[in-house]
Amino acid sequence: MVRDTSKDGFKNKLTTYALTHFKGLWHFVQNTPLLEKWANKFLINNAIYKVPTRPLPYSMMTLEPTIPGTDIAKKTDTYTSWDSLCDRTYTGRHLPPDPTFNQSEVLPNSKDLADLFRKRNGETILSEKSTLLFPYWVQWFTDGFLRTDPNNRLKNTSNHEIDLSNVYGLTPKVTHLLRAFQGGKLKSQLINGEEYPPFYYEYTDEDPDKDIIKEEFKDLYKRLGAESRQTAERKATIFAMGVERANIQIGYVMLNVMCLREHNRICELLAKTYSSWDDERLFQTARNILIVTIMKIVVEEYVNHITPYHFNFKVDPSAFTREKWYRRNWMSIEFDFVYRWHSALPDTLLYKGKSMPIQESLWGNQLLINQGLGGLFHETCQQSGTRIGLFNTPDFLVEATEVPSIKLGRRMQLASYNDYREMCQFPRVTDFDQISGDEAVQKSLRAFYGSVDNIEFYTGLYAEDVRPNSAIGPLVGRLIGIDAFSQVLTNPLLADTVFNKDTFSPVGWEIIHETNSLQEIVHRNIPAAQQLPTVTFDRKQVIENKFP
Amino acid sequence: MVRDTSKDGFKNKLTTYALTHFKGLWHFVQNTPLLEKWANKFLINNAIYKVPTRPLPYSMMTLEPTIPGTDIAKKTDTYTSWDSLCDRTYTGRHLPPDPTFNQSEVLPNSKDLADLFRKRNGETILSEKSTLLFPYWVQWFTDGFLRTDPNNRLKNTSNHEIDLSNVYGLTPKVTHLLRAFQGGKLKSQLINGEEYPPFYYEYTDEDPDKDIIKEEFKDLYKRLGAESRQTAERKATIFAMGVERANIQIGYVMLNVMCLREHNRICELLAKTYSSWDDERLFQTARNILIVTIMKIVVEEYVNHITPYHFNFKVDPSAFTREKWYRRNWMSIEFDFVYRWHSALPDTLLYKGKSMPIQESLWGNQLLINQGLGGLFHETCQQSGTRIGLFNTPDFLVEATEVPSIKLGRRMQLASYNDYREMCQFPRVTDFDQISGDEAVQKSLRAFYGSVDNIEFYTGLYAEDVRPNSAIGPLVGRLIGIDAFSQVLTNPLLADTVFNKDTFSPVGWEIIHETNSLQEIVHRNIPAAQQLPTVTFDRKQVIENKFP
Repeated sequence: MVRDTSKDGFKNKLTTYALTHFKGLWHFVQNTPLLEKWANKFLINNAIYKVPTRPLPYSMMTLEPTIPGTDIAKKTDTYTSWDSLCDRTYTGRHLPPDPTFNQSEVLPNSKDLADLFRKRNGETILSEKSTLLFPYWVQWFTDGFLRTDPNNRLKNTSNHEIDLSNVYGLTPKVTHLLRAFQGGKLKSQLINGEEYPPFYYEYTDEDPDKDIIKEEFKDLYKRLGAESRQTAERKATIFAMGVERANIQIGYVMLNVMCLREHNRICELLAKTYSSWDDERLFQTARNILIVTIMKIVVEEYVNHITPYHFNFKVDPSAFTREKWYRRNWMSIEFDFVYRWHSALPDTLLYKGKSMPIQESLWGNQLLINQGLGGLFHETCQQSGTRIGLFNTPDFLVEATEVPSIKLGRRMQLASYNDYREMCQFPRVTDFDQISGDEAVQKSLRAFYGSVDNIEFYTGLYAEDVRPNSAIGPLVGRLIGIDAFSQVLTNPLLADTVFNKDTFSPVGWEIIHETNSLQEIVHRNIPAAQQLPTVTFDRKQVIENKFP
Repeated sequence: MVRDTSKDGFKNKLTTYALTHFKGLWHFVQNTPLLEKWANKFLINNAIYKVPTRPLPYSMMTLEPTIPGTDIAKKTDTYTSWDSLCDRTYTGRHLPPDPTFNQSEVLPNSKDLADLFRKRNGETILSEKSTLLFPYWVQWFTDGFLRTDPNNRLKNTSNHEIDLSNVYGLTPKVTHLLRAFQGGKLKSQLINGEEYPPFYYEYTDEDPDKDIIKEEFKDLYKRLGAESRQTAERKATIFAMGVERANIQIGYVMLNVMCLREHNRICELLAKTYSSWDDERLFQTARNILIVTIMKIVVEEYVNHITPYHFNFKVDPSAFTREKWYRRNWMSIEFDFVYRWHSALPDTLLYKGKSMPIQESLWGNQLLINQGLGGLFHETCQQSGTRIGLFNTPDFLVEATEVPSIKLGRRMQLASYNDYREMCQFPRVTDFDQISGDEAVQKSLRAFYGSVDNIEFYTGLYAEDVRPNSAIGPLVGRLIGIDAFSQVLTNPLLADTVFNKDTFSPVGWEIIHETNSLQEIVHRNIPAAQQLPTVTFDRKQVIENKFP
C-alpha cells in the first residue's frame, strides 16, 4: 500500500524533490566552489530556521514539584525564570509542557505500547541503506552529549558540546585520570601488538570476586549496575575510558579505541615537528584536532549518509557567524528522542562469520581484542543495520528502552506528534495512512490511539515511513537537522577566532583538512601488516564492493 | 597646555565630531523612530566591531604554572586548549600574554608608581560631569560581574551575566537564603518605617564580641577580612545581601536597598493582578522584571551619561540577533581594568551637610538608616564625584588598589598601552603629549617609562585626558563600549524568544517599558510622606537645578 502524501506539505515536497533529483545539476553545484558554499549555507540555514532558535524559553525545570535545591513545594506552572534560563543541567525543550494532552484518558497504557515496537513474528527488517556501523556510530557519538541523568530524568549530565567526552571524560578530573602525562598521550596498553585503553579492574588472583577497580581509576565514574553484574571473565577486559557507558557494547568500544589510537598517533606527529612542546600542549592540541576531525566526519560522512540528497553538506565554519541560530548549545529532549534508535540494532550479529546474539556483544571487549580493530570494523561493515521504525526493536530492548521512553515523554508532558509536526512546518496529519503506508502500522496506531491527534511524539517519530534512500523518517530527519547543525557548528573550535593554524598547528591543520572519511582514520590506526578493512555506513558501497 | 591630537585617528575624530555636533540633526534622528533604530544599531555595532568578537582564543588559564586541578608542572606557553575555551572561571583576555614586554628591565618599580595615582599636594580634582552617584553606581553595578577570585587572581567568581548577583546572590543556594518564600519577596525588615534587608549578625546581648552570624545566613558567603574586623557597633547594622562585598560602602548598600524595595514592590503588584501565582512564580517574575529594568537604566541612563554624544543609546533587543558579536559572555581582564575607577571617589563626603572622610562610610549602614534611602540619594546627587585619571585617587586606595592593579597586569603579562591602542583602532602614540595635555602627567610618564612604548596598559588607561563633556578617557570608553554592549545585549532575558509578555507578564512588561530613570525607581520606593529626592548622574542637572 502506498502512503498518502497529501499532508507532506507542498514546500517540503518541492525541496525534497529538488534535492533528490537533478543529479547532474547538484554535481555541478558541488564542484563549483562558490556555488557549493552558497548552497551549503542556504540548505543548512533552511534546515535550522524551521523552528525558533535558542535560547529556548522553557526547560524541564518548570516540571519540578519543588524549588530545585530545596524541598519547598511549588506549582508546576510553565514560565521562564532566571534559573531555568541558566541551569543547563535541566534538559531543554522546544515546545512547552502540554498537561492536557498528557492527562488525556485517551492515551493507551504505556506498557501495552511495547507491542508497537516488538517484532512481528520475530521478523527483523534489515536496513537497505545502512551497515551495522551506522547504529554503532550513532550510539557512540550521541552518547557524548545526549545524557539523561539517571538520578533525575528531567536533568542531564551533558556538557552540551561535541567534546568527545566518551573518549576524554566529562570533566577535567576524569581527563587527568586517563592521561599518561607523557608525550601528550592517553594511557594505553598493547595487546596482540595493537593499542587499547588500560584495563579498569585489577583482576589479580588474590581477588576472589574479580571486582577490584584499579586505584588510579577509582574516581573515574560511578559504575553502572549492569557493569557491576558482569562476570569476572568479562570484567577482565573492561577498559578505563571516558564515561560509565563506554564499555557497554563492542561497537562503542571499537570507536573509542579508534579515537584513542588516533589521539596518540597525532601526539607523535606533533612531537616530531614541535620538539619544544611539553606533554600538556601536545595533549591539548591533539584533542582539539581530533574533536574537529570527528565533527567533520559527522557532517560530511554521517549526515550525508542519513539524508537522501544529491548535495553533500560540508563543514564551512565561516559561513554562519552572523546567524541567529548561533547561540549557546542546550540539548533538548526532542533531540534526545529522535536519537533513540533501538530499532536500528539487529538481534544477532555476524562475528567471525558466525551468528551471535547481540547481548553477547554487551560488555564483551574480548570480542574486539580477538578480532583486532581492523577486523571488527570490517566485519561490522559487511553486515546490515536494521530499519529504524516500529515493529523492529530487539526483544531485550523493548521493555528496557522503548516503554521507558514513552513514560518519560508523558512525565515531561510532551506535546502531541501532530503538534510537533506543526512546529516543524509539516501539515498536521488527518489520517493514519499519511504517516505510514504499512497497513499493520496504521491498524495498530488506530487501535491504540483512536485518532491521529492522540498520537504521542515518540510513537509518531518512529511510525513514519523512512524516506526512499534515507535512513530515517521525515520528522526525525527534520529535528536532527535543526539541533545537530545548530549545535555542531557552534563548537568553539570552529569559531573564526579559533579555527586557524595557531590553534591546531600547521600539522594539525593538515590532518583536519586531509581527513575525509572514517575509513582513513581506521586505516592509519591498524598494524601495518593487516589487511585494510572496509569502513562505511553505506550498505550499497559494500554490496557493490566499492571497498574491496 | 593643549594635547597633541595628531594620533587620535582620522576616523575616530570624525566619528566623535559628528556625534558631538549637529545637535539639531541628532535630535531629529532621535525623534524619528526608524532613523533612531537604525542609528542605534549602527553606532552600537560600530562600537563593538572595533576588535575581534568572542570566543576569545586565550584565557588566563595559559598562565597557570601547573595543569589546573593537579600539581603537574607545565610550560606557560600561550595556546588554545579545550579547557581554556570552556572554563570561564579563568578570566578572559583580548590580547595574548606578552612576556617580553613584562620582563622588560625598563618597567618601573610598581610601588613607585603609587606616585602616579596619589594626589598632588593633596589636591582633589572634581568631576565636571558627574555627581557622586556615578562612582557609587559603577562600583555597585560592575561588582555584579567583574569579580576577581581572591584565591587565584587569574580566576574570577563571576556568572558573566547581568543577573543582579549583588542583590540575589551568585548561586541559587544563596538566593534561597535571602528569600522570604512568601509572596515572592526577599526577606526584609522595617526600620523607621522604611524597608531594609535583614541584619546579618545576631547581635544579642549575650554575645560579648558581637560577632555571631545569624543561623539562617551562615552559608551566605565567606566574610571578607575587612568585615570581620569591624567594630561591634558597625556590625550591628550589616545587612544580609547577595555578595560578601555588598556592605562595603553606603553607596553600594543604598543601591542594593533600592533593588530590594523595588523587587518586593513588583511582587505586590504582580500578586494583585495574578492572584493564582505562587511565591516561586512571583519571585522569579519579579527578578526577571528587575534585571531588565536595571539593564535599561545601564544603557539608557548610565551609558548615555559617560558618552559625550548627542545621540542617546536605547535597549533594542531585536536589532542584534544576527550579529557576530552575539556570543556567550566571558568577562575579560581588560573590561575589569577599565572599571577600576578608584580616582572617581572623593576623600570626603558631605553627610547631612557636614564633611566626613569617605572611610567612615565603609561598612557604615547606620548612615543610610539615619538618613533614609531618599535622603541619602538626594545628598549623594548634590555633591560631585571626582575626575577619573592619574593624581586623583584617595590616599587610602592608592596602595590598596592602584599598585595591586599594576602588579596584576604584570602577572597577567598584559600587552602595552600602545598595543591596546592599536587593538582598539587608535594609532599608536609617539609622544607623551599625545596622551595628556597635563604637563605633570607627561613629565611623570616620561620619568617612569622613558618611552611611550613602555607604558603599561593600566597606567595608560588613566593617563589619557578625559574627553570634553565625557566622564572617561578615549581608550577606557572604547573598551567599555566593546565589552559592555556585547555582554549586556546578549542577556538571555533580551533574546527574542524570551523578551515578551509571556516571560514578564503584562504588568511586568509595562514596568519595564515605563521605567526610564533611576529617579523613577527611587521615587516609588520611599515613604509617601518624604520629599522626592533628586537622582541623577549628571552634575549639570543638579547645578541647573533641573530637579528641585
